[in-house]
Amino acid sequence: MKLVFASNNQNKIAEIKQMLPKSIELLSLEDIGCTEDIPETSNTIEGNAIIKANYVSEKYGYPCFADDTGLEVETLKGEPGVFSARYAGEQKNADDNMNKLLFNLRDKSNRKAQFKTIIALNINNDQHLFEGIIKGEIISEKRGTKGFGYDPIFVPEGFSTTFAEMEMSEKAKLSHRGIATRKLISLLETL
Amino acid sequence: MKLVFASNNQNKIAEIKQMLPKSIELLSLEDIGCTEDIPETSNTIEGNAIIKANYVSEKYGYPCFADDTGLEVETLKGEPGVFSARYAGEQKNADDNMNKLLFNLRDKSNRKAQFKTIIALNINNDQHLFEGIIKGEIISEKRGTKGFGYDPIFVPEGFSTTFAEMEMSEKAKLSHRGIATRKLISLLETL
Repeated sequence: MKLVFASNNQNKIAEIKQMLPKSIELLSLEDIGCTEDIPETSNTIEGNAIIKANYVSEKYGYPCFADDTGLEVETLKGEPGVFSARYAGEQKNADDNMNKLLFNLRDKSNRKAQFKTIIALNINNDQHLFEGIIKGEIISEKRGTKGFGYDPIFVPEGFSTTFAEMEMSEKAKLSHRGIATRKLISLLETL
Repeated sequence: MKLVFASNNQNKIAEIKQMLPKSIELLSLEDIGCTEDIPETSNTIEGNAIIKANYVSEKYGYPCFADDTGLEVETLKGEPGVFSARYAGEQKNADDNMNKLLFNLRDKSNRKAQFKTIIALNINNDQHLFEGIIKGEIISEKRGTKGFGYDPIFVPEGFSTTFAEMEMSEKAKLSHRGIATRKLISLLETL
């Protein structure tokens, strides 16, 4: 089955591809000739996942899933949340985003945070939303070079290493995106 | 498993109960002590199903599904659609609604219409939307006394009887709500 992942983020595509059964041929936006930027105009994580999945299904007619992820920091009332990727501006630079977050948390003792991923899947005229959450905390300096986004400053509950210090396969087992992706795959296997 | 159907419509509850596996205990809004009216303020069928399911999950903490159904008439550009139940006014009277529709179609030769049901299911922090559509046409006079809503004036494609002339079990096999409900049940069986 051909299935579009509404993304051109090669990190995400690689992370999900290794978890999918071989019967599914994963196509990126580039693979289907979708070169335009899909506007992510919602003020919720869920809303942006839906916008992207609907855009591809409606315009290109493929079954499609899209994800959106945010880092929700408790003492910042859920910020940066849906704005995580552009927290420090539209340049969407991970270092800038982390620096801004570390600055905003500089005098905070409550470092609790959670990553939340929502995957929206459009298939057979139905829509499925899968949630994946991992709780943890924001440390005060960057550690590790793997992963992407806020991974160097996020330590999941029960661990002492950051996501950026873990192998991709280890992170995939426990991450927010891993949880949501396994739910996605479970459903795909029943179809 | 206890599962709430966000409805007090005894017709709908009976129709769905006979299709559910015995392992699922179906609770109505009344059963969980929800006596308030849940406002259906969306301008889409899907939106109203989501509002109702979210209301119960968030306020009462049960896994929950809700449905919304509309009759979409081609020559009326999809009307009455999300307004089907209150097409002739807030009294929500089926006879008044049918009379208004028959009047609006009095000089129309295109009688094509479809019933559309969306079921929204909230479970395990995920949300699933199931679509069921049945195509047919609107006849010019009411026939039959079973069913409810617009059933006496809707003849599904390939049939000569209206939904209101069919046994409940026969209608459940082919109806919009039956299609969406079977998708719901398939998913519940995988959990």
